[in-house]
Amino acid sequence: MKHTISVLVENHAGVLSKVAGLFSRRGFNIDSLAVGETENPDISRITIVATGNDYTIEQIEKQLNKVIPVIKVKTLAEGDYISRMLTMFKVRFTSPHRGDIMKIAEIMGARIIDVTSSSITLEFTDTEERTFTLEQLLKPFGIKEVVRTGAIAIEKGNKVVREKTN
Amino acid sequence: MKHTISVLVENHAGVLSKVAGLFSRRGFNIDSLAVGETENPDISRITIVATGNDYTIEQIEKQLNKVIPVIKVKTLAEGDYISRMLTMFKVRFTSPHRGDIMKIAEIMGARIIDVTSSSITLEFTDTEERTFTLEQLLKPFGIKEVVRTGAIAIEKGNKVVREKTN
Repeated sequence: MKHTISVLVENHAGVLSKVAGLFSRRGFNIDSLAVGETENPDISRITIVATGNDYTIEQIEKQLNKVIPVIKVKTLAEGDYISRMLTMFKVRFTSPHRGDIMKIAEIMGARIIDVTSSSITLEFTDTEERTFTLEQLLKPFGIKEVVRTGAIAIEKGNKVVREKTN
Repeated sequence: MKHTISVLVENHAGVLSKVAGLFSRRGFNIDSLAVGETENPDISRITIVATGNDYTIEQIEKQLNKVIPVIKVKTLAEGDYISRMLTMFKVRFTSPHRGDIMKIAEIMGARIIDVTSSSITLEFTDTEERTFTLEQLLKPFGIKEVVRTGAIAIEKGNKVVREKTN
């Protein structure tokens, strides 16, 4: 089962390596990982999507809480959060397929960020599912390159994952 | 100086930890990091933005090339690539500021992904600079939470970073 884990850490060199190492030592495969600063530049948030059973996730949560610079760990509950990922697709862009590719971009809500006579680059932010759909739609034209972030997640409503409750 | 490094790695547990560890051992601070699958599910791309001089970056590139599961390392040249990041902002959303916040979202091209009577969540994909601008515009209303990916980058035009040239 896929789990989305939000980890707040102090913004120090070495923390990311420690956190990632903890997963790999337990033989846990990380599906995706994204790191970025929070509203406080001294604190970063690592969002990890990993596959495993509930018991293992619980163990990892406990271990993470022991890693000194970890401030807070929260496994987000299914249905309680909104998840998004950003992907850039570079696609072969030759006649007579240009119109079709433009139409797909428009329908799916992808933005064109670069174009040449033989390739087009699209930027797309959405759920994993819709990103997969767009990829399937673009595949027949020839995908030259895919660059993507890991998924990030935010809780629905007013809740926040924070060092202090506010 | 900020450098954007694109690293293609085999999709194995432990690789990410090794790559991140290499930076931290050299006392190199990673500003942001994003990992995601490429067009080939066996290969992941790690995009790292790090600050340092050209000599240190060169050393790190060499070291990375020695880490077994690293397939390709490329430091992207300034002006040669398009960089994007995804950010979700949860903002206090109370009267009489709702109209102002909606207007800012519209002007900047942010999407509303969740709303309650007291908070609104926006999704925004753009450059680091424009993301900073949006954050500054939202700050006076009260930012409750920021969740962001690291920056990802794709070369302009037809070039691709790949294991094989195609």
